[in-house]
Amino acid sequence: MTYQAPYKDMQLLVAQAYQQHGLDKLESLEGFDTDLANAVMEEAAKFASGVLAPLNQIGDVQGCRFEEGKVITPDGWKDAYRQFSESGWIGLALPETFGGQGLPKYIAQPVNEMWLSANLAFVMFQALAQGGSEILLKFASESLQARYLPNIVSGAWSVAMALTEPNAGSDLGALTTKALAQDDGTYKIKGQKIFITYGDHDLTDNIAHLVMARTPDAPAGSRGISLFIVPKYRVNPDGSIGGFNDVCCTGIEHKMGLHGSPTCSISYGEKDECVGELVGELNQGLMAMFVLMNEARLSCGLQGVALGELGYQSALEYAKERTQGTNEKGERVAIIEHPDVKRMLLDMRSETFALRSLGYQIAAQIDLADSNQNTALHARIALLTPIFKAFATERANVMAGQVVQVFGGMGFVEETGVAQIMRDARITTIYEGTTGIQARDLLMRKVRGDQGLALKALLCEIDDQAAKVEANSALSKTAEEIRHVVVKIRSLLDKALLGQEEDSLLGVSVPFLDAMGTLCCAWQLMNTVVLADDDIDDGYYQNLIAMVQFYGAFRLPTAMAALQTVESKSLGLQEYVF
Amino acid sequence: MTYQAPYKDMQLLVAQAYQQHGLDKLESLEGFDTDLANAVMEEAAKFASGVLAPLNQIGDVQGCRFEEGKVITPDGWKDAYRQFSESGWIGLALPETFGGQGLPKYIAQPVNEMWLSANLAFVMFQALAQGGSEILLKFASESLQARYLPNIVSGAWSVAMALTEPNAGSDLGALTTKALAQDDGTYKIKGQKIFITYGDHDLTDNIAHLVMARTPDAPAGSRGISLFIVPKYRVNPDGSIGGFNDVCCTGIEHKMGLHGSPTCSISYGEKDECVGELVGELNQGLMAMFVLMNEARLSCGLQGVALGELGYQSALEYAKERTQGTNEKGERVAIIEHPDVKRMLLDMRSETFALRSLGYQIAAQIDLADSNQNTALHARIALLTPIFKAFATERANVMAGQVVQVFGGMGFVEETGVAQIMRDARITTIYEGTTGIQARDLLMRKVRGDQGLALKALLCEIDDQAAKVEANSALSKTAEEIRHVVVKIRSLLDKALLGQEEDSLLGVSVPFLDAMGTLCCAWQLMNTVVLADDDIDDGYYQNLIAMVQFYGAFRLPTAMAALQTVESKSLGLQEYVF
Repeated sequence: MTYQAPYKDMQLLVAQAYQQHGLDKLESLEGFDTDLANAVMEEAAKFASGVLAPLNQIGDVQGCRFEEGKVITPDGWKDAYRQFSESGWIGLALPETFGGQGLPKYIAQPVNEMWLSANLAFVMFQALAQGGSEILLKFASESLQARYLPNIVSGAWSVAMALTEPNAGSDLGALTTKALAQDDGTYKIKGQKIFITYGDHDLTDNIAHLVMARTPDAPAGSRGISLFIVPKYRVNPDGSIGGFNDVCCTGIEHKMGLHGSPTCSISYGEKDECVGELVGELNQGLMAMFVLMNEARLSCGLQGVALGELGYQSALEYAKERTQGTNEKGERVAIIEHPDVKRMLLDMRSETFALRSLGYQIAAQIDLADSNQNTALHARIALLTPIFKAFATERANVMAGQVVQVFGGMGFVEETGVAQIMRDARITTIYEGTTGIQARDLLMRKVRGDQGLALKALLCEIDDQAAKVEANSALSKTAEEIRHVVVKIRSLLDKALLGQEEDSLLGVSVPFLDAMGTLCCAWQLMNTVVLADDDIDDGYYQNLIAMVQFYGAFRLPTAMAALQTVESKSLGLQEYVF
Repeated sequence: MTYQAPYKDMQLLVAQAYQQHGLDKLESLEGFDTDLANAVMEEAAKFASGVLAPLNQIGDVQGCRFEEGKVITPDGWKDAYRQFSESGWIGLALPETFGGQGLPKYIAQPVNEMWLSANLAFVMFQALAQGGSEILLKFASESLQARYLPNIVSGAWSVAMALTEPNAGSDLGALTTKALAQDDGTYKIKGQKIFITYGDHDLTDNIAHLVMARTPDAPAGSRGISLFIVPKYRVNPDGSIGGFNDVCCTGIEHKMGLHGSPTCSISYGEKDECVGELVGELNQGLMAMFVLMNEARLSCGLQGVALGELGYQSALEYAKERTQGTNEKGERVAIIEHPDVKRMLLDMRSETFALRSLGYQIAAQIDLADSNQNTALHARIALLTPIFKAFATERANVMAGQVVQVFGGMGFVEETGVAQIMRDARITTIYEGTTGIQARDLLMRKVRGDQGLALKALLCEIDDQAAKVEANSALSKTAEEIRHVVVKIRSLLDKALLGQEEDSLLGVSVPFLDAMGTLCCAWQLMNTVVLADDDIDDGYYQNLIAMVQFYGAFRLPTAMAALQTVESKSLGLQEYVF
């Protein structure tokens, strides 16, 4: 089982997103065109297949070890990290000022997808470096930036995000880690955090922890949270590394998946010797967190795409090789000849493709929004973010299950390697905000927040395109179905979505998100065909059309079903007493 | 996390199945009434919670070991097995002639459910003993029965089923293990088998392997398979144990789940010293396998119910204890107060309840069919079997995922114990015939085989009941929805189901099975309310109604969606070229 970047798909979708959002006309992106994108992707593909993918199963089997207070990563991790950072991949989309390459998101997106497919557990430090840097760029003082950013961008130091505490998971407002102001302007940090990805490891000389904590006089709840940068080893004024900063790893979790990624419990200031510096304003930590969260959610959605792709490749290869059963002539056939196996493969193929397209479109929109104050554009990104995060990861879980199913009994045997995909995928619908939290965000903030404005605009765009292709006989059935879904959502908007009492609405929030996700995927598949040249390569184009048809026939009906549930106003749910 | 048998639900559903199928009027079941059923269930519940459940996680963590050619079960397994067999649980539903207790299926069903919830990996020998005994009772000579059955029924010896070979999984016709007739009427067996549950272990003195093999002149394919009984140690004419029979375990699988259940590779006759005896007629092995298969499929469906229940109990307990977020008054609340968490819990609750009901009904129908040649009844059981097997196990996988989701990050941590449910559940849609194979069986044999007769009869029964309760305002919405689904299936019957070309039909076979499963669950929930006294206990009855409403609102629409897919004739699937 070896991962190969789906280069043809990526190239097509990157080019489409680039064109469709007019990035070619953007001054700020001069020089960052699709030729560059293709060159970068080609290099990344080699690295992903050659260096990262071979370590994926090793990481799963060995896992990280916790010995004498230290985390030891699996064999090969250190060397791969050195190659990864030396090749400049960490700073790919970070500013050139601090040593990065300043590439736009639309190019970083396919590259990140490759890392995530090849070795999700390994590469989790990458999103942390990216998100951490963006926080520092936005909120930290120049002095902090100067001392930290060059080291983070180069990969010399890694970043850890310390949010969760045993009693404060999704509910950050409940956290209790303390920050006590010192005379020199720094803070003494004291508290216990859990579930910190790469909170400790042996890959870098230092680790910059971004820690959420409270000062003694802070308001209760989430309005009293401040953000601190807390290095494992203190950082001297000149940026060099000083003494130990009383940041102790107390253990790592024994998890169902992602064995190669250390999930640490950290004790800050056990000996009252842990010093942090404030990032941004006091009690404004949540603002920084929102920056990180959006970043992290999009990255997490991309994990769904990446695991879907990895699973699909594995299942396809196996289904072509494994013979079982016979055809009408009595000849043994590969299991891909069995219609139900083919159905599972095309389900994975079309869903992954559609989700990839959605993610690339969002990335391109973010590039556009960076130099554009258009509120509709910002609202569109905000609307699509929870859908992409939750739907891509939920579907990745379903797809990972299908991969095992295609492998049959062999899939249940760990050595085969596909069980790992399923185990790894399981956390993606939980971290960075559970599916339920994304669904609440979608309905309460993104739909109700603007009285449905952004949603209506999205529906218009989808409907307009569907109306245009309805006459195209190959796409007409799916286009028609898409328009039905749009009509249905519109009919629910005033009464069910905007008008309904909160509790009964939240009971159907995940079905609503499912419907939106399914609609968006159908739209993306249709969009791809509309934008594609019909002479790309005959078979490929025909397959794009077949995917639109398949998605319309096999997946889109579930959107209508989910909307019927939305319409039910949680019938039975509120009546039941546990 | 401790499993407690859902005694109230079980008692209700057992009594309903007993009454509804007129088992009270059956002479052959005299003395086996619901009072006895309740007494047996009460004892079983204690054993399940007290002895088996505490070993479940131990089995997962330790797993079985393979050392020096021998399989060693986890700590506590041996003692639990001794207690289990000494208490007579193995022979519960086996004939009194051979030392069993001869209990009907309708009583064995809830008892088996308890074992499967409490410790699925441990108790897999039970279904093997049951299925193996039924094969011997039906096909074996008196001499074989006399030597083997008393030992199997008492639990002194266990049973193993040796079907699969590396190149013959779902496709038994491809197997190559050889059987060579000897002058004394026995056969020399030679071949390699894999995936043999409890193929070797340290719980009993002997293991009776039922081995599928071919004689040299046997026809190719599945018509040339014969069944042999091959003990690990030879069995003397008086039933005592003789010398080693050249049955060697060559290894056990390292699996994603069911760690406590040894999945063995066995080499028969490495030294040409492996002797077997024919069971039934030459080349008729598949007939015996069909007996076993039906038995195994129902037992496997019940595993789905059992894992659903175990997961539901765990999730409910956690959701009541774990606080996170606040209510309108700003008070911290248990996460069960969040509507989306409540939705997941009620989803598990209602689905498990409905599937349990379906399984108990099938069990009662089998008891009825044992003394009844009514072809409609036999056809009904045959129709429901693949639906129950595939749908219960598919839903169990979805539910197990929901359990982890309710636990959030803690669910991903192995120590919590719920990840095990998900890992264990994963094989249930694969073994005893994959979901795709069940769906093919449903459509090609059970629906097309009698030109839709049994399906029509089922739809009539469901529709009649829905029509009757449509006026009941609490159930009316769901009843109406049920009738729509029935109408839709009827409309598809001639053209889409009976008339369609095989390949395009098989592409939508799993969606069709899904629709049937969902419809059957809605029907079972409705049926429960119809049969229940409305004064059982006020809250309980009201909850039954709420479950019908919830299922109608949240799950039944997916049946319509799946039927729309069936109607699509696999659009796009046949066009796509991999």
